[in-house]
Amino acid sequence: MNILVTNDDGINSRGIYDLVVALREIGEVIVMAPLAEQSAVGHALTVSLPLRVTEFHKNGNFFGFAVSGTPADCVKLALRTFLDERGLPKPDIVVSGINHGRNTAVNIIYSGTVSAATEATVLDVPAIAVSLTSYHPDADFGPAAEFMKRFTPEVARIGLPRGTLLNVNVPALPDSEIRGVAYTKQGASYWEDEFEKRLDPQERPYYWLKGSYILEDKDADIDDIAIRDGKISITPIHYDLTNYDFLEALRSSWPKVF
Amino acid sequence: MNILVTNDDGINSRGIYDLVVALREIGEVIVMAPLAEQSAVGHALTVSLPLRVTEFHKNGNFFGFAVSGTPADCVKLALRTFLDERGLPKPDIVVSGINHGRNTAVNIIYSGTVSAATEATVLDVPAIAVSLTSYHPDADFGPAAEFMKRFTPEVARIGLPRGTLLNVNVPALPDSEIRGVAYTKQGASYWEDEFEKRLDPQERPYYWLKGSYILEDKDADIDDIAIRDGKISITPIHYDLTNYDFLEALRSSWPKVF
Repeated sequence: MNILVTNDDGINSRGIYDLVVALREIGEVIVMAPLAEQSAVGHALTVSLPLRVTEFHKNGNFFGFAVSGTPADCVKLALRTFLDERGLPKPDIVVSGINHGRNTAVNIIYSGTVSAATEATVLDVPAIAVSLTSYHPDADFGPAAEFMKRFTPEVARIGLPRGTLLNVNVPALPDSEIRGVAYTKQGASYWEDEFEKRLDPQERPYYWLKGSYILEDKDADIDDIAIRDGKISITPIHYDLTNYDFLEALRSSWPKVF
Repeated sequence: MNILVTNDDGINSRGIYDLVVALREIGEVIVMAPLAEQSAVGHALTVSLPLRVTEFHKNGNFFGFAVSGTPADCVKLALRTFLDERGLPKPDIVVSGINHGRNTAVNIIYSGTVSAATEATVLDVPAIAVSLTSYHPDADFGPAAEFMKRFTPEVARIGLPRGTLLNVNVPALPDSEIRGVAYTKQGASYWEDEFEKRLDPQERPYYWLKGSYILEDKDADIDDIAIRDGKISITPIHYDLTNYDFLEALRSSWPKVF
């Protein structure tokens, strides 16, 4: 099995390292990830600047290719041009992560980790985004990496519907305390955020985003609630954003505007 | 009516200027838009850097507030902090555009124009994203601006479901040739793209994205087809990305993986 791995925390982060070490036990792994951290970058593509690729080494060994761009850039560049050019195999599956922090509810729309997996589905390759629900600097990526070692081959074997990826969030718990898997819906939790106004040394104002996350949901089949219950949350997501119910209402009951 | 206007082409672009001139005939308009062009920026939020706000003048008059960030930053900063701080009214509606180029099908996931409107719906304010389907440097934004002058008050009056925005694409045609409005679904058209490999003056390689857009759909109720038929395409979109059909399949037929 050929696996392409990327992330948004950058190629030098612990989450991608632990993921790659685990996946190398079960397949051929190619890493193509951003050189610099790219969190909250959304589904950005670099169109006004060229991209550079450099070989990245870790502990004295070749680890992967670092790209001067976003997570979506990495996946598009790999699948459209770079792998072919180097004579490298097309992946059977793309895995993006392990992100340092949860990607649930509204967070999904800001997530570079998820956008990389989405870009893979745009290009018809099955994909998984995986996150660890902890921002702690010493968070243990081990249980999430172990789970992906077992789960990735299953997803590659069974396949996914065109345009759909799996968004996996692993609770920050020891293996023995994780209470199984829940297939979930994207929740409605949100950020109660604001901008702090400060003055720089020249007394000019600037604004900096800060906020706290509000757990809005209650049902066990929602991403954040499954995690709270100690389960690995797996949400199937796609990029058809049409609100079909409201489309019917628009067609049947809105006034003629043109 | 209070209207907040933003875009992704930058505060100095023609599309936002023509939109603001038209909307100022029907309401109080506050502009808060990126200082620099932000196309294909996706739903990025600036979290690692502070934001600056400067007053932007056009033709000798105050035009609006320029922000050193993304379209989503502009909307979040305005609605969460800046308008209150300045004693400015909360908007009844947010309008993002007029984008120079179509935002249909897969383009929606890369679009800063749409992400600004999405951010407004995250913060419970109704929103419209509007684009002109032409990349021509001399494209005429007039018919799109005229349409928004009539359409925006209707949307503000009727309201939208929580979390849903309207994504409007106006064909690049004179008013007299536009053949009405179609309420549409997000289509499946896509980019046949690749990266061109070049060498810089130091003979080091770099990659630059290029591509052509492939019209995939046929049905008249799809965004790109409505536009091809000379109609204004209006697609209701939301940010619940759950693939509900596949969620059922996962729950009923996937093997136990944990």
